[in-house]
Amino acid sequence: MVEGFWFTEEHTKNVSLSFRVKKVLFYKKSQYQEIVVLDTYEFGKMLVLDGAVMTTEKDEFIYHEMLVHPAMVVHPYPKDIIVIGGGDGGVAREILKYKEVKHIVMVEIDKDVVETSKRFFPNLAKSFEDKRLKLKFMDGFEFLKNSFENFDIIFVDSPDPVGHAKILFSEEFYEEASKKTDILVAQMETPFYYNNFIKNTLQILKKHFEEVHLYFSPVPTYPSGWWSYVFCSHGVKPFDFIRTSPKDLKYYNFEIHKSSFALPNFLKELLK
Amino acid sequence: MVEGFWFTEEHTKNVSLSFRVKKVLFYKKSQYQEIVVLDTYEFGKMLVLDGAVMTTEKDEFIYHEMLVHPAMVVHPYPKDIIVIGGGDGGVAREILKYKEVKHIVMVEIDKDVVETSKRFFPNLAKSFEDKRLKLKFMDGFEFLKNSFENFDIIFVDSPDPVGHAKILFSEEFYEEASKKTDILVAQMETPFYYNNFIKNTLQILKKHFEEVHLYFSPVPTYPSGWWSYVFCSHGVKPFDFIRTSPKDLKYYNFEIHKSSFALPNFLKELLK
Repeated sequence: MVEGFWFTEEHTKNVSLSFRVKKVLFYKKSQYQEIVVLDTYEFGKMLVLDGAVMTTEKDEFIYHEMLVHPAMVVHPYPKDIIVIGGGDGGVAREILKYKEVKHIVMVEIDKDVVETSKRFFPNLAKSFEDKRLKLKFMDGFEFLKNSFENFDIIFVDSPDPVGHAKILFSEEFYEEASKKTDILVAQMETPFYYNNFIKNTLQILKKHFEEVHLYFSPVPTYPSGWWSYVFCSHGVKPFDFIRTSPKDLKYYNFEIHKSSFALPNFLKELLK
Repeated sequence: MVEGFWFTEEHTKNVSLSFRVKKVLFYKKSQYQEIVVLDTYEFGKMLVLDGAVMTTEKDEFIYHEMLVHPAMVVHPYPKDIIVIGGGDGGVAREILKYKEVKHIVMVEIDKDVVETSKRFFPNLAKSFEDKRLKLKFMDGFEFLKNSFENFDIIFVDSPDPVGHAKILFSEEFYEEASKKTDILVAQMETPFYYNNFIKNTLQILKKHFEEVHLYFSPVPTYPSGWWSYVFCSHGVKPFDFIRTSPKDLKYYNFEIHKSSFALPNFLKELLK
């Protein structure tokens, strides 16, 4: 007998990825979503929100490093940072590796995600112990609209653009964000299945930021295995390197940074 | 009712990718393997050999362009080429885009793969109409051992290293190949699941080639969505550009070429 059972995520209505699971470690319907923690054979512990894989022990390093480091190494002085979403703590963990960082606000809508991460993902949640990090449990857009603070970098670590996260891909959010930061970085889904979504979103971003650049990395547990991110700024370019990255990274380095911005021909065509 | 049914490929015994299928277009047990052609909703027509996705209409361009063009643009004069495997015709299609090419031998063990491609994948099989291409239906290693010819480039477009394709990842094959060519390029599986296999294979290749470089691209229908290739030569370096690539490519370009050789830290560590 093969032990365990299979968890399946539909990536489109015609493609799905399945993981053999040892055990369901946690299940809760929070105020905002269904939170599940699975112990999988291939990827170790896995956080699933509303049926979609958010992060796994085995491949989280690629996504978290690639969301954070490209902006951190080019900002002249990244001391005040805001993370919107990112309740598992992985993005904050990477940001906190820079001694220049004085203050991070993490605005996560769902307190239960943070609690779940503290319990099951200590390697991500260790960031919550750092005194430079302040947690706010509320809607990220609401927080930004009502804040008088400006930030050096805004990182948007959100789920897919449906439900409560949809606002984080809207023009009103991007416009507000553009007034409050030098650099905005956001996860931008896969260019393989959602290229029109990416095209439309980049067109909106270009109205509010001078520099808008798509970049890429593999993320084996996300749809198509090929993920994109967007780097936006009012002038800082993604290749104006100011500092070197931390020593302990498993994916990101200087050559990966430069390489990740290369656009395949079909995307050049789509985005021109 | 949702129409169609699901075809599932196990990528490891703990991870599998599934595709919704409209129709089975073809099924045959050939002398060497089980050949299936599916009409899928997301990826169009799909060639499946012994249960593993070989190529699909939607994403074949990435794999075929990335296997071929990096070597073609750096070889001083690529006139005699051999393709081992590649029975669908996609690799030959890309090679034939260069006017420098005088002569391609394609050594495919299974004639039925070529026949299947001619019938269902005209966009790949069109290469079979080019007079510069000669087909041999036999084992690639046997052909190479008994050939007195030398080649400018050997492309190995093989299935996974099991069954009849296993020999194409062996030291005896690489040693023989190294005597007969300037450059060898081979698909090298995913660095995400099979990194020890890659490490061992690269160690063998380094005994027979001066230059051995791993490079990468996404391939959404292959395990993990992140694929690797190896470029080996007796001196030609992967960045000594001699010519520009053809105009009609959908993935490959100059920046992609340079970027595809960047190694993430965990692979630098593994391969050092």
